[in-house]
Amino acid sequence: MIRAGILGGSGYTGFELIRILLAHPDVSIVAVSSREYEGRPLADIYPAFKGFTDLKYVSPDSEVFKDGVDVVFLALPHGTSMKVVPDLLSAGVKVIDLSADYRISENDVYAEWYGHHDNPHLLDKAVYGLPELYREEIRSSNLVANPGCYPTSIILAVAPVLANSLAKTDIIIADSKSGVTGAGRGLSLATHFCEVNEGFKAYKVGGVHRHIPEIEQELSKLSGKTVRISFTPHLVPMSRGILSTIYVVPRNGVRERDIQHAFEDFYAHEPFVRLCGDGEFPSTLQVRGSNFCDIGWKFDKRSNILIIVSAIDNLTRGASGQAVCNMNIMFDIPETTALLLSPWQP
Amino acid sequence: MIRAGILGGSGYTGFELIRILLAHPDVSIVAVSSREYEGRPLADIYPAFKGFTDLKYVSPDSEVFKDGVDVVFLALPHGTSMKVVPDLLSAGVKVIDLSADYRISENDVYAEWYGHHDNPHLLDKAVYGLPELYREEIRSSNLVANPGCYPTSIILAVAPVLANSLAKTDIIIADSKSGVTGAGRGLSLATHFCEVNEGFKAYKVGGVHRHIPEIEQELSKLSGKTVRISFTPHLVPMSRGILSTIYVVPRNGVRERDIQHAFEDFYAHEPFVRLCGDGEFPSTLQVRGSNFCDIGWKFDKRSNILIIVSAIDNLTRGASGQAVCNMNIMFDIPETTALLLSPWQP
Amino acid sequence: MIRAGILGGSGYTGFELIRILLAHPDVSIVAVSSREYEGRPLADIYPAFKGFTDLKYVSPDSEVFKDGVDVVFLALPHGTSMKVVPDLLSAGVKVIDLSADYRISENDVYAEWYGHHDNPHLLDKAVYGLPELYREEIRSSNLVANPGCYPTSIILAVAPVLANSLAKTDIIIADSKSGVTGAGRGLSLATHFCEVNEGFKAYKVGGVHRHIPEIEQELSKLSGKTVRISFTPHLVPMSRGILSTIYVVPRNGVRERDIQHAFEDFYAHEPFVRLCGDGEFPSTLQVRGSNFCDIGWKFDKRSNILIIVSAIDNLTRGASGQAVCNMNIMFDIPETTALLLSPWQP
Amino acid sequence: MIRAGILGGSGYTGFELIRILLAHPDVSIVAVSSREYEGRPLADIYPAFKGFTDLKYVSPDSEVFKDGVDVVFLALPHGTSMKVVPDLLSAGVKVIDLSADYRISENDVYAEWYGHHDNPHLLDKAVYGLPELYREEIRSSNLVANPGCYPTSIILAVAPVLANSLAKTDIIIADSKSGVTGAGRGLSLATHFCEVNEGFKAYKVGGVHRHIPEIEQELSKLSGKTVRISFTPHLVPMSRGILSTIYVVPRNGVRERDIQHAFEDFYAHEPFVRLCGDGEFPSTLQVRGSNFCDIGWKFDKRSNILIIVSAIDNLTRGASGQAVCNMNIMFDIPETTALLLSPWQP
Repeated sequence: MIRAGILGGSGYTGFELIRILLAHPDVSIVAVSSREYEGRPLADIYPAFKGFTDLKYVSPDSEVFKDGVDVVFLALPHGTSMKVVPDLLSAGVKVIDLSADYRISENDVYAEWYGHHDNPHLLDKAVYGLPELYREEIRSSNLVANPGCYPTSIILAVAPVLANSLAKTDIIIADSKSGVTGAGRGLSLATHFCEVNEGFKAYKVGGVHRHIPEIEQELSKLSGKTVRISFTPHLVPMSRGILSTIYVVPRNGVRERDIQHAFEDFYAHEPFVRLCGDGEFPSTLQVRGSNFCDIGWKFDKRSNILIIVSAIDNLTRGASGQAVCNMNIMFDIPETTALLLSPWQP
Repeated sequence: MIRAGILGGSGYTGFELIRILLAHPDVSIVAVSSREYEGRPLADIYPAFKGFTDLKYVSPDSEVFKDGVDVVFLALPHGTSMKVVPDLLSAGVKVIDLSADYRISENDVYAEWYGHHDNPHLLDKAVYGLPELYREEIRSSNLVANPGCYPTSIILAVAPVLANSLAKTDIIIADSKSGVTGAGRGLSLATHFCEVNEGFKAYKVGGVHRHIPEIEQELSKLSGKTVRISFTPHLVPMSRGILSTIYVVPRNGVRERDIQHAFEDFYAHEPFVRLCGDGEFPSTLQVRGSNFCDIGWKFDKRSNILIIVSAIDNLTRGASGQAVCNMNIMFDIPETTALLLSPWQP
Repeated sequence: MIRAGILGGSGYTGFELIRILLAHPDVSIVAVSSREYEGRPLADIYPAFKGFTDLKYVSPDSEVFKDGVDVVFLALPHGTSMKVVPDLLSAGVKVIDLSADYRISENDVYAEWYGHHDNPHLLDKAVYGLPELYREEIRSSNLVANPGCYPTSIILAVAPVLANSLAKTDIIIADSKSGVTGAGRGLSLATHFCEVNEGFKAYKVGGVHRHIPEIEQELSKLSGKTVRISFTPHLVPMSRGILSTIYVVPRNGVRERDIQHAFEDFYAHEPFVRLCGDGEFPSTLQVRGSNFCDIGWKFDKRSNILIIVSAIDNLTRGASGQAVCNMNIMFDIPETTALLLSPWQP
Repeated sequence: MIRAGILGGSGYTGFELIRILLAHPDVSIVAVSSREYEGRPLADIYPAFKGFTDLKYVSPDSEVFKDGVDVVFLALPHGTSMKVVPDLLSAGVKVIDLSADYRISENDVYAEWYGHHDNPHLLDKAVYGLPELYREEIRSSNLVANPGCYPTSIILAVAPVLANSLAKTDIIIADSKSGVTGAGRGLSLATHFCEVNEGFKAYKVGGVHRHIPEIEQELSKLSGKTVRISFTPHLVPMSRGILSTIYVVPRNGVRERDIQHAFEDFYAHEPFVRLCGDGEFPSTLQVRGSNFCDIGWKFDKRSNILIIVSAIDNLTRGASGQAVCNMNIMFDIPETTALLLSPWQP
């Protein structure tokens, strides 16, 4: 039995981690922290858990996260994870960090987008936790940086195309749309029901969203060239789901079947990517609550643009489901354990 | 008093026309047709109208549309308007057609996207009813082709940039998101509540949506070059609103202030375009129920992409509000009559 | 021109007041206060107002509210209105208070539900601003207590029945459902999009909601007996609207036509009550954005219960629309001025 | 391995049955029927199932439902189940009927509400499949009538009170609110997104909903008296969930602790009922996707009304989850198998 701890367990990614791990046959949740709710039962904050667990939130300073667990999931704000990771690693605990703190491998890029890093020497020790790209590295790692939700949806959509040099790399446009759980459980006018409902909008427009360096890092590796992406996120009046619509320019001579083969080969043995195929496109509803990334595409020859559309659940594939998948790999148990339940539709 | 008729008044654009015209000081609604609801009071179908009108739906074949009105709004399916327009014009009635039948000025383009046209000689007599571009032509026209909802949101957003040659014309990408009223009141699984709710998706992907030729026609005129657009519509779980996010590549040397001036000059005297400015972006909520098009933009120099975001209400600015605006112009009354009410937020 | 001031103009009732008054031909908005947004343009907070007003929020302490206006609307929290009302009245300003401070005419009842009142002598001077019940008193009043949203929907629904002694008064059950704007614009987990969406629930169950004394006061007056009501509010995942379903026990011998006549007579000349009739029931959509209260009913003889259903827009009829209606009456202009626009459906 | 068939598997209850059974360790889905989609893969209609099953819809006339299965779930319209049940029983197949055909034990009551019954002799052989009331009868039955969604939410909420004679039986009022999946996947204006969104309403008001006889039958048995219920359903703009607010009049002398004990004793050993307790109330979100019924209550002494609130997922506890629970009992496997996953919140 793997003993798991969760640091920062009161938000929506914390909820999703607990939900998945409660059904995991090889995991026992030992401790979940929350400064705000310390001492209160998890089921008080999330009544969904009534009858499933008697756990109460503990302080994040509890020694149990070093002494009593095999793995810790960090669902903490950016900048907070780095305060605790070195100690956790020293204590021999495996770490899966859902913040951005270890996603960027180069310190100067990190500094440009996020500021000072406390332990930059760990940056290139951490593995970017996208199983389709780094399964073997994850298996032998003690520190996995779980990818951002938008990057997961975009990188998986474009990877086969760039890895096979099917598109130009100077213009890559990702227009992404996210449900509101992506903004977290914290209070803000932007997540007030009456501001969201009937109020579709873009935000952080113009190359300023902090998921950009992470996307560019991975797309650059895949293509072997320095990639600059134009990324625009939008907020959808729904709770869960990210749909990314990605526009690339195919290189001269690229045919539809080249694209088809690229996707089929790249994801031939992947349990969590489902191809809709050429001309078929996913809805967020068909992946809700699951770890799947569903992908469709169409080469529009009139405008010479290849459009790729991917759908994920931002809380599951975009955060906690992927984190559990990484844990499965790190502990050498079947990668799909606790993650192969049918999505929630409707 | 202008006597107005509405052919096809049971759908959502019909509702919106009636709603606006009921408050129009210079208009009297004489007749509204519906085959399905013939003989039934409008207020039975739309209880909102209880107390506002005693009108009953009449047959579309009623002679009143030729004999008893000064203007007819056609809220009919594509292909149906062209069956009645010649007779209406012969009868001396002014026509504002909300279908696509007269939006395309060249018959071969029309044929490619829509098929056979019954009276192609009228195509270049009709005026494309976008007041910001064709105000004077509308004033003297008897046949106005009211623009599509997506085209309105896209053409208004890009016009200042293309008219001032600030962007390349080989790559123009429009990623649009529409509320469900855009799909009409007709029944389909695609508009069933449980399929829409939490189910964000793209549709008609890859250069196949019939609004494309209309957009390309106008952008080509504005830029003086043949424009091909990549256009992808999406369905948002909300009732009203279109948000279009448009990506263009600025020409070399274009500065932020050139873009700013282009927008400010182009729309300096326009009552129904509101500029959010550089780095500020609209939500669909701030234009709901109104005839406004709100526009923001940002030149992302990292990726060398100019992002323009526009928001309209698809039923008002994207259909019936614009139609009433066209009527105001055609009858030489102040353009903003009945259209200057504050949007519905929240 | 009536010069109007609004104290507390940043919330949703403030928005709605401004929206309506901007279109009022006889009113000029002179000043709107907000401590939080003092100095900022209204259109910054509500971009819907862009182009409609250049007003900036002012301090609630501004002298203009005493010196420069004819009427002040108070959209302030409970307990705050009573701090400013005596001075406003002394300054000769008419006051329409949207808080609960002056709705309860007896001080001991007020004390039981709300606590200490600063100026209880004003309680029986204030008029309860439900035009259908107190039109004449409103006309000659300087202090109108605008009814609560739930009470408006319940009192109007039950008034004809109680005024005609058609039902027993010992069991009156009101099960009400409100959109989220009713909870205001302030931040709370209860109004976070992801907690509301798909999360229908009851709140303040069991005779504890502060609208109860107000409802009981009016129902007692109407029936001539002391009425105790069982009232349970619920939160609906929508922005606007209250639907109240009310259950009463008809007295022996009461016939369906007695009920029908009671409703028809009571509301025969009322511009803002629309009867759906026996067996027809309203949706919140058909009154959205309007000052209407739509009412339907059905006498279920099997269970011997009369069910009455009313629908209002909580922000319009339930707050700001009714407040403007009261103003119209107080200033002797036609009661429906600025309030007779068709509801927003869809 | 239990071999299961589903007759009528294209609707939402069919979806939910398949979703749950796919994760059931002791069940193999052998065949799913749909006239409309015969020959098409299930995953075409519900892309959520992509990768989970290769099954294609078969004709409902297929012999497999008699020859090749151990149990058949009937997710058919009312009146259709009765056409196939006798043959299925003769073939030795166990039947769980999700329609209303066998819920009413007396033929004259059935006739009054539904009309002619083809095989009334089976009515009193069928067991009403509410495990908390009829566990032992279900265990030995071959024909289980799965309860309606509203009745499940109401009977479970009131059972402890009536079984302990704590309330009068002459006035029982149930005000229920359902998500739209309760109306099924069939097309109708009532489920069109734009009619539901922001359009809360009541329907089938006044003692006419067909769930009434089922509720009255069970409440009468529980209380030992003939019960007449006043039941009013409402449609909530959300996909899943029923919240029922129930009003009863406590008998003289009943104390809060009597009520508390009644609930605690009645549900002491029930795995699928979770008590929120006195003064705590559930949201539909906390039971979404699960087989739980969460219940809270409050005795309002001011108005002498006991208010009970229950929340279920209409598709799971209100239909397919309960059906699987019944199957578990009928096949003598642990009752909670495949049903103990945490609800979906958010």
